[in-house]
Amino acid sequence: MKVYLAGPDVFLADARAIGEAKTARCAALGLEGLFPLANEVAAGHPAPSRAIFEGNLAMLRRADAVLANLTPFRGVSADPGTAFELGFAVAMGKPVAAYSNVPGDLKARVQSEIGLVQVGAELMLADGMAVEDFGLADNLMLSEAVAAGGLEVVRPLYPLADPWRDLGAFDAALAQLAALLAARPARVRSAPR
Amino acid sequence: MKVYLAGPDVFLADARAIGEAKTARCAALGLEGLFPLANEVAAGHPAPSRAIFEGNLAMLRRADAVLANLTPFRGVSADPGTAFELGFAVAMGKPVAAYSNVPGDLKARVQSEIGLVQVGAELMLADGMAVEDFGLADNLMLSEAVAAGGLEVVRPLYPLADPWRDLGAFDAALAQLAALLAARPARVRSAPR
Repeated sequence: MKVYLAGPDVFLADARAIGEAKTARCAALGLEGLFPLANEVAAGHPAPSRAIFEGNLAMLRRADAVLANLTPFRGVSADPGTAFELGFAVAMGKPVAAYSNVPGDLKARVQSEIGLVQVGAELMLADGMAVEDFGLADNLMLSEAVAAGGLEVVRPLYPLADPWRDLGAFDAALAQLAALLAARPARVRSAPR
Repeated sequence: MKVYLAGPDVFLADARAIGEAKTARCAALGLEGLFPLANEVAAGHPAPSRAIFEGNLAMLRRADAVLANLTPFRGVSADPGTAFELGFAVAMGKPVAAYSNVPGDLKARVQSEIGLVQVGAELMLADGMAVEDFGLADNLMLSEAVAAGGLEVVRPLYPLADPWRDLGAFDAALAQLAALLAARPARVRSAPR
């Protein structure tokens, strides 16, 4: 079975090595990891972003499941390209698993990064906007998409020394997904391609 | 025809007023705007985040198209919940339109917010990760999803005084979507619900 490895890992300087490490761990569990860096195009391509978009969607359609890296990327939340791919997979009925390499929940992270201000007798976020208060790793659409399949977004207990390369939470999410796929192969095989 | 109005607008203190303004503009074009704030649940609900998730997905399935607010939200990029919904809609074959209420492209925004550092003779982003260089409003999965339908992510030419409430780019994206829906009603009606 094929697992699409979604995440901003493709933007790392050592993306190729990360992709190889992740696909090797998939192979150890009898799964084929699909890493979207394979959809990069050569310099000089006339429409590179369109080609990568179409390559990623074709790879998602081939996949039996998605494992997403939801580690906050240049802000308080997950990479929006990864979130897009998670939504695409959920609409196609594919099982999804995820991890986020920071401890704690979205609310605490937003309060820390955005800051609180006092308005009258109340404390409000400095940007004047609300934050979800559900104890989830990120926006509820992401966390509940994983929970709907019976899994949970795996998070470390403490801050990691290298959250972009530590694969402990990845391994735990992959093990969850492998067990899920083993438990219901027929349903996965009948999913739309 | 029904248009799902995706975006972090639901987190604004005056979310209800924004939703009413957006749905009124849809109605003026003969469209029914679906604003996900309607899926909020009462205090004390036993599983509020699951209920909102399911309510949003049911509303997305009912919609004939999606109009997404991709304005950067607490970081350099769009709200990941909105990105998830955009991917969900694309997988279902629904037309999607979008706007982002900041001028310029992702690369310039990332360089400005993350900062550049010199490594040897080269300038690199301070977080050591790459950024897409395609002149797009945000991550290519979002921008190309809109472009694949023949539309573009509408952006203002200059910074807006109130990017969370200015509806100029929303109106332009809505007009694009209305024209697209008028041009192919049969195809839209046959999309999966």
